[in-house]
Amino acid sequence: METEPLLDPAIGHEQVESVLQAYFGQAKLRAAKVSPSYLSLWETLEASTAGGKRVRPGILMTAYQHLGGTSLEAAARAGAAFELLHTALIIHDDVIDLDFVRRGHDNVSGVYRARAEEAGQTPEAARHRGMSAGIIAGDLVLSGAFRMLDTVDTDPATRLRLAEILDEAVFASAAGELIDVDFSVSPGAPPVAEILDMERLKTAVYSFEAPLRAGAVLAGADDDVAAALGRFGRDTGIAYQLVDDLLGVFGQESATGKSNLSDLREGKRTVLISHAAQGPHWDELSHLIGCPELTPAEADRARELLVLSGARDFARTLADEHAARARTHLDCPAVPPALRQVLEHILDGAVNRGR
Amino acid sequence: METEPLLDPAIGHEQVESVLQAYFGQAKLRAAKVSPSYLSLWETLEASTAGGKRVRPGILMTAYQHLGGTSLEAAARAGAAFELLHTALIIHDDVIDLDFVRRGHDNVSGVYRARAEEAGQTPEAARHRGMSAGIIAGDLVLSGAFRMLDTVDTDPATRLRLAEILDEAVFASAAGELIDVDFSVSPGAPPVAEILDMERLKTAVYSFEAPLRAGAVLAGADDDVAAALGRFGRDTGIAYQLVDDLLGVFGQESATGKSNLSDLREGKRTVLISHAAQGPHWDELSHLIGCPELTPAEADRARELLVLSGARDFARTLADEHAARARTHLDCPAVPPALRQVLEHILDGAVNRGR
Repeated sequence: METEPLLDPAIGHEQVESVLQAYFGQAKLRAAKVSPSYLSLWETLEASTAGGKRVRPGILMTAYQHLGGTSLEAAARAGAAFELLHTALIIHDDVIDLDFVRRGHDNVSGVYRARAEEAGQTPEAARHRGMSAGIIAGDLVLSGAFRMLDTVDTDPATRLRLAEILDEAVFASAAGELIDVDFSVSPGAPPVAEILDMERLKTAVYSFEAPLRAGAVLAGADDDVAAALGRFGRDTGIAYQLVDDLLGVFGQESATGKSNLSDLREGKRTVLISHAAQGPHWDELSHLIGCPELTPAEADRARELLVLSGARDFARTLADEHAARARTHLDCPAVPPALRQVLEHILDGAVNRGR
Repeated sequence: METEPLLDPAIGHEQVESVLQAYFGQAKLRAAKVSPSYLSLWETLEASTAGGKRVRPGILMTAYQHLGGTSLEAAARAGAAFELLHTALIIHDDVIDLDFVRRGHDNVSGVYRARAEEAGQTPEAARHRGMSAGIIAGDLVLSGAFRMLDTVDTDPATRLRLAEILDEAVFASAAGELIDVDFSVSPGAPPVAEILDMERLKTAVYSFEAPLRAGAVLAGADDDVAAALGRFGRDTGIAYQLVDDLLGVFGQESATGKSNLSDLREGKRTVLISHAAQGPHWDELSHLIGCPELTPAEADRARELLVLSGARDFARTLADEHAARARTHLDCPAVPPALRQVLEHILDGAVNRGR
């Protein structure tokens, strides 16, 4: 759920923007009838999603079009459902992580915390105010995701399958979030397999696997195509997240738009850390990571230890292996060559970021 | 969202239990495939809903049957959607209110906080663990509410209207929760009209108005019947909440199952407080309420002041007025007399609790 993959300008980006604009427009009209403060919550919600790359709608629509789907409008609506789910998940994830900033801007909780502080509330009360607004806002867009599917013009059976896929994405993300929370309070580093499982559940399913399957189902593709795209999405998502974790430590902030200190300071449990925990440098490393006051010099030392212990190479290799496995899932006659080509391009973009 | 109205044994209670049992049964099967900890979250969720009076399904099914609906199964599923919404809202409401106990038992957050404490975590870490689990659990059953509607055997247009009604309930509840949070951090007491508006949005819509409308729509009743029942539900819900606030201060714990100290200790903004804030006893009263250490003797004094200032009578009269207004909405030839009778009975039960 971190930095976004570098995609080509997504197919149907304009349609998705227009669907989301209509969704928020209608919600704001309704909210304005309730109270100015409710309108403001919806405005804050809309602003928090503005400028997003709409990656999930983009890959859904890519699959849809290449599998013969002809209603860009329907695909944009299905895609928008995943964008709203994404919005809900990151808002609640930020509440759980006590994060008030995302991509350098106040998130929904951050906006409400800042307002409460300006109104003279204590830092603790303001923080709580921010988190409360975040919980409420996330609930609204989570409901919005399911409601959005009701607006997809398709037959009832297909609509039901889309709702099942969205539901499976929620189910997986919640499981991943729960495991992630468990990690954050457990001593030591969990095994690599558990980290990969968490990242699959928390991010890969809802960001890659589910949108690709939904695009295939909406296009009326055969079950085996939808399943193949789902498997491709799953492995692509894991590879993507592995690269994300690498960039979170070794990336250049100017290129990623993300601090390369915060994962180290937070002591985020990633494959890097998990691998290093088995090596000879763990004693020194474990005293550096998780320290909120970590200096840039100490961070450099932590990076050095991650390289020396082989953790960086290990994570890089694991990402490449998942990418290679993702590719094999496309090796299926029912996947049209043009779709295969564009999906491989997406995969390359996801895995080669920052290289 | 507090104590439940005293209904007759709800129509179709068994069907609702069976639908919910199947829902949680299937979720637990899926969760068990992910991890034992995820299964445990679902078990905790299910336990948190066990033994509920299923008031919302009950009134939905009452309307449905009296308006000629013949599929108890479909009505039970629509009712279960509102029960799941209720579950989600109270879990997130408790997270926002930092409540770890509901009806004398640990809620979902409370269960996870206790486990974390037993595992040796600091009280603050354990509290955060509890709240995180509550956020995740609420998201799951909120999604479950929308998914449940997909299982209602009806035509697509009716299903869509049910989803709209459920969505309107989420929309109103979120607005009410936001206003309630604003109250809790504002100095002084808000005007009576604002309190009533908050209680309508936060509780009356999703607990009474929406289930009644949904029952009517599912039964294929005319729009004016659904609208009349909705108006009845709205005023009944406000009356119910006014009585709830009275019982929260003046009720006997042995009868209500709810502490009659906690609202005073919390300084909960109710019509009682709002009215008293305009009277001559406010200076003394305002120093008592909101004090977490309030003694039973001080609470008795606070009650005395609420009586002396006329706040108790004011709230009681307001509840009776809303009940009377609710009754007028049933005065419509399209509402069958038998339904009218049972709804008036529900109204009486809601308003005369604790008298």
